[in-house]
Amino acid sequence: MTDAVRRHDPEVRGFASDNWAGVHPEVLEALALANGGHQTSYGTDDYTEALQHVFARHFGERAQVYPVATGTGANVVALQALLPRWGAVITADTAHVNADECGAAEKVGGIKIYPVESPDGKLTPELVDRQSWGRGHEHRAQPLAVSLTQSTEMGTCYSIEEIRALCDHAHDQGMMVHLDGARLANAAAHLGAGLGEITTDAGVDIVSFGGTKNGLMMAEAVVVLTPERIDEITYLRMSSTQLVSKMRFVSVQLEALLAGNLWLRNALHANAMATRLATAAARIEGVRIARPVQSNGVFAVLPPEVAERLRKRFPFHTWDESTGEVRWMCAFDTTPQDVDAFVEALETEMRA
Amino acid sequence: MTDAVRRHDPEVRGFASDNWAGVHPEVLEALALANGGHQTSYGTDDYTEALQHVFARHFGERAQVYPVATGTGANVVALQALLPRWGAVITADTAHVNADECGAAEKVGGIKIYPVESPDGKLTPELVDRQSWGRGHEHRAQPLAVSLTQSTEMGTCYSIEEIRALCDHAHDQGMMVHLDGARLANAAAHLGAGLGEITTDAGVDIVSFGGTKNGLMMAEAVVVLTPERIDEITYLRMSSTQLVSKMRFVSVQLEALLAGNLWLRNALHANAMATRLATAAARIEGVRIARPVQSNGVFAVLPPEVAERLRKRFPFHTWDESTGEVRWMCAFDTTPQDVDAFVEALETEMRA
Amino acid sequence: MTDAVRRHDPEVRGFASDNWAGVHPEVLEALALANGGHQTSYGTDDYTEALQHVFARHFGERAQVYPVATGTGANVVALQALLPRWGAVITADTAHVNADECGAAEKVGGIKIYPVESPDGKLTPELVDRQSWGRGHEHRAQPLAVSLTQSTEMGTCYSIEEIRALCDHAHDQGMMVHLDGARLANAAAHLGAGLGEITTDAGVDIVSFGGTKNGLMMAEAVVVLTPERIDEITYLRMSSTQLVSKMRFVSVQLEALLAGNLWLRNALHANAMATRLATAAARIEGVRIARPVQSNGVFAVLPPEVAERLRKRFPFHTWDESTGEVRWMCAFDTTPQDVDAFVEALETEMRA
Amino acid sequence: MTDAVRRHDPEVRGFASDNWAGVHPEVLEALALANGGHQTSYGTDDYTEALQHVFARHFGERAQVYPVATGTGANVVALQALLPRWGAVITADTAHVNADECGAAEKVGGIKIYPVESPDGKLTPELVDRQSWGRGHEHRAQPLAVSLTQSTEMGTCYSIEEIRALCDHAHDQGMMVHLDGARLANAAAHLGAGLGEITTDAGVDIVSFGGTKNGLMMAEAVVVLTPERIDEITYLRMSSTQLVSKMRFVSVQLEALLAGNLWLRNALHANAMATRLATAAARIEGVRIARPVQSNGVFAVLPPEVAERLRKRFPFHTWDESTGEVRWMCAFDTTPQDVDAFVEALETEMRA
Repeated sequence: MTDAVRRHDPEVRGFASDNWAGVHPEVLEALALANGGHQTSYGTDDYTEALQHVFARHFGERAQVYPVATGTGANVVALQALLPRWGAVITADTAHVNADECGAAEKVGGIKIYPVESPDGKLTPELVDRQSWGRGHEHRAQPLAVSLTQSTEMGTCYSIEEIRALCDHAHDQGMMVHLDGARLANAAAHLGAGLGEITTDAGVDIVSFGGTKNGLMMAEAVVVLTPERIDEITYLRMSSTQLVSKMRFVSVQLEALLAGNLWLRNALHANAMATRLATAAARIEGVRIARPVQSNGVFAVLPPEVAERLRKRFPFHTWDESTGEVRWMCAFDTTPQDVDAFVEALETEMRA
Repeated sequence: MTDAVRRHDPEVRGFASDNWAGVHPEVLEALALANGGHQTSYGTDDYTEALQHVFARHFGERAQVYPVATGTGANVVALQALLPRWGAVITADTAHVNADECGAAEKVGGIKIYPVESPDGKLTPELVDRQSWGRGHEHRAQPLAVSLTQSTEMGTCYSIEEIRALCDHAHDQGMMVHLDGARLANAAAHLGAGLGEITTDAGVDIVSFGGTKNGLMMAEAVVVLTPERIDEITYLRMSSTQLVSKMRFVSVQLEALLAGNLWLRNALHANAMATRLATAAARIEGVRIARPVQSNGVFAVLPPEVAERLRKRFPFHTWDESTGEVRWMCAFDTTPQDVDAFVEALETEMRA
Repeated sequence: MTDAVRRHDPEVRGFASDNWAGVHPEVLEALALANGGHQTSYGTDDYTEALQHVFARHFGERAQVYPVATGTGANVVALQALLPRWGAVITADTAHVNADECGAAEKVGGIKIYPVESPDGKLTPELVDRQSWGRGHEHRAQPLAVSLTQSTEMGTCYSIEEIRALCDHAHDQGMMVHLDGARLANAAAHLGAGLGEITTDAGVDIVSFGGTKNGLMMAEAVVVLTPERIDEITYLRMSSTQLVSKMRFVSVQLEALLAGNLWLRNALHANAMATRLATAAARIEGVRIARPVQSNGVFAVLPPEVAERLRKRFPFHTWDESTGEVRWMCAFDTTPQDVDAFVEALETEMRA
Repeated sequence: MTDAVRRHDPEVRGFASDNWAGVHPEVLEALALANGGHQTSYGTDDYTEALQHVFARHFGERAQVYPVATGTGANVVALQALLPRWGAVITADTAHVNADECGAAEKVGGIKIYPVESPDGKLTPELVDRQSWGRGHEHRAQPLAVSLTQSTEMGTCYSIEEIRALCDHAHDQGMMVHLDGARLANAAAHLGAGLGEITTDAGVDIVSFGGTKNGLMMAEAVVVLTPERIDEITYLRMSSTQLVSKMRFVSVQLEALLAGNLWLRNALHANAMATRLATAAARIEGVRIARPVQSNGVFAVLPPEVAERLRKRFPFHTWDESTGEVRWMCAFDTTPQDVDAFVEALETEMRA
């Protein structure tokens, strides 16, 4: 029996982040399945090899999958694969790779980021064009990639047409397209489309596929969709510290997610909980839902002192101190009872 | 029930590497314990906080632990913490950070490595001095750290006195000491000493503590032993892509290993299996044990064609093509029967 | 006699950039003076040592000067000196280090830049605050420096009070202040103040001092004003490729500029030429001077087809295609006749 | 008249380094020729364009020249051009890029260096093979370039056949060849061969061409010999801080050197002075010439106390404290009288 002890109440959940959740029980099962015996390390094991087929079914026959440990790792490896040493990437200012990764892209890859202000976390061809210029001019780090986030940090989703328009626009200018899909499943669930439909088929070149926020323990992947145009991920993954030795345990998590429909079940559920929450909260006077609810996050504006009191019972993050906007995230394990209790508490605090 | 399927025979083991092994059953238990409910992400959870005390018991009250995802990540973060932007580190040429990490230290940290040829994988003050010069000379990347590996890539161990002598020597010259402890438990088990005795007490400044090769799934840690002398690991961990979001699942693995004596049981067992293997193999004519067996690895010289045939039944790596030296690694899950079957096969093939 | 041949007409000048100009005759004299005999290389020569006193007279007794080859080199070395590995710098979006150096800061130093939109190229405490947040939050590259440009890329100048307010504001928040002074002399000339008054006395921590745009051949310098707070420039200069071997020839240029008042003569002259040009051009109907003329650059809006025709006779750059804004730069060698001829041509083309 | 003052005796010379010398008078003439009027900056000026033809005459029609400010800059730009992000370069341990550039290649380019011990500063196919392995193995930074130094740091020269053999060997293994030619002219002079014969014709891919040590002020160049195989130097030069704004003044120096035979005159002279010195010194009892004199450097072993006294009159460097080996460098401006006086002093001190 393990010497580790349970240190938390497994029935307490909040709305702070989908990565505050634990892992889906099927994932623990999968880890147990993959255990025992010896398997080659660093990705030549049977689970990682099988994973190629799993991803090919979702992302198309040419897709290649490279499991990594963290989402930041996936982003940094993917962007390096797209860019020469002097390349730059255009992102929304709120993109995780620009705003939340402590400068990892700059530091590990020497990559310049051109952030574009975007009120809803989405880029458009017009927004891209604000930074897509100066080609051939050696004073300007060359904008050779665009990075989209789907669903965005603001809980919004690109439609398939929007992604296609951005990819076409980028490709026309000689830029490649990276998609940070830390919450790609939530977007697919919202759009009612397959993972490949909203990436490969729309023209995306490379994806950071996120499993962790959708019920895995720690499992992300770089998915190469247009192999003839990218450099060698294997070396980039290793030299960027992202090659996991017992990779079977990363790969089997991804298999558990994608071999069947766990990815979709989890995402649909989290999205539905967000919608339930937004719908109920919107009815409360003084609470304003600030953005379209298109995935598993709800952004709301309410009086700061109410937020303060409410947070003591259910943790969640403030998104913008100046406007009083808060973020409520639902996860695969959020229950309708969680939502209802939260809404009730919100109602009570609003009245207090 | 998970959609993942078992793809391997959990009873088949070889001698290729300790990271070909799976995870100890107690680790799966621990992961299940930590599951359920919400916990803050990125290391402020209850498991990571508790881990500080676990590490303090082993490494001393001032020790600080920062869990990371990969051993390369631990090394790169630790070395950056010790070195200014113009700093260099002296290592044995066979050190993992020099020989096996695809240039990650150079790439992520811009760190220059001064490798020193070392026949047994160990440094000595004399070997260090081959590169420890040129202080104050701006043309020379300043040697400001020494990195030891314990146990070494060659299966050898530094004695406590040897480590202390190296630390004293390094500190006298203004250098700090990093210890790559991917197999630190095996060394402690061999030396019959505690983890703190062979690190903190001997003067080491920072440790890459390895859990994965000793029965964990993926869990390593940067352990800071002399906090007043190092920079801020938190930022380095994030900007080097090594901050795991659901960190409770990394931390609980390390707790499972170190809260009781799993670390020691696993290491003693793996070491004992190596000794059993070396002892038996040494008796076979034509097989020569090439290095002292001081941890869980056995290095042997045998005819290449024998190695070739033997490898088909039990995977293992060639260490040096030119001499015919091979490496046989034992793991926490290697059984006496595995060893005996392997020795029998070796004997048969030698006679064939 | 040299085998090199004159390939250009030394009487042809335009308004494209102050770095299209050659060097002041006194600079050639100085280079000749420093020639002959042997002098130690890499900055321990008599000229470089004497330069310390020259800079101390301008920038204060604690100032330390480190000559380098290029302005980008000066910026990259200076910013690395101010920032830990995880540090970020706040700049105006138009700052040279952000917009015109092909990502050198990101690439060489792994530095994240937080650009702030600034209509006139200047920062204010309010603009700084748009990015000065997130301290202690490991997901955010820590904003630990502010970089000002004086005079700015838009030809505007900070007043001494504005610089002091920015330095105080930055220091209050634990940030240090870099000043990109590629055209510092032009700003001092405009403000009627000494070089130290507008930097050291106003609280600046480190300066990239520009000589090249003010009549030197190639000579820039990192000037450290608050030595107790910065890392070791010597190593950064070398490891960033900026250590010039025959440094006496860089240092003597800077001496020629700063030992007497060549710096001021050149700057006053270039500024006066810009004022002359702006004053005359403003009188022409259809030409609008777009920004305050506070150094040696004039920004004007005129019909694109006029600009096109005019440019054939006098080269100059378009600043903003969308608005038709152009930039006319004056240099130390611009003559009143040059200006008058240009204005006449402008007038003619406007009428055509 | 310049405010700079002469601070040294232009008749005092020593034997410390060829970069302690000043510049050849023809270079000052050339700088004056290029002065005056306006010329486009950053390398589109008439002098830089003409330089292409000058280099093409020496290095072949396909050669492309990119002037830079420092030799370290040339090396770092050239190596980045040859290597992907995960590439490594094999060098002699004494190579400048490994031993004397403060880790610039690692820091700026993230490049791993595999140094090979080489007693005479030269590589051979056999020495290259000590590190040329592990292709396709993601744990090993991929050895994809070899860097030679000609003449070497030890004053030795590769023959044309040796270079060709190394290039063939490298190319056969998929590696490209960089040649650090900080003293390429001295090697060509020694070999009695053209600059192209010992580089382009022998199979070298890219050269760091040095002008500074051969009588220029500060002028080096990256010379691309096999353009179809390298990346875009322009961006690398800028992002590595090496783009000089008033580039006409770098280019005209290189023109002064290479348009006629100044390069050869200077190199032949410096080499002859070294031979004169070595020949005379060899006759003195107790002095041993330690290495073949194949360029402008003499390595000698003499009693340390003699070296100490002698150095007070004529500066020179100790090469190896442990053996008492010293280095005497001759420059383009070393006179026979300098040599004779030095030898006489040496003789006197040996007898003292």
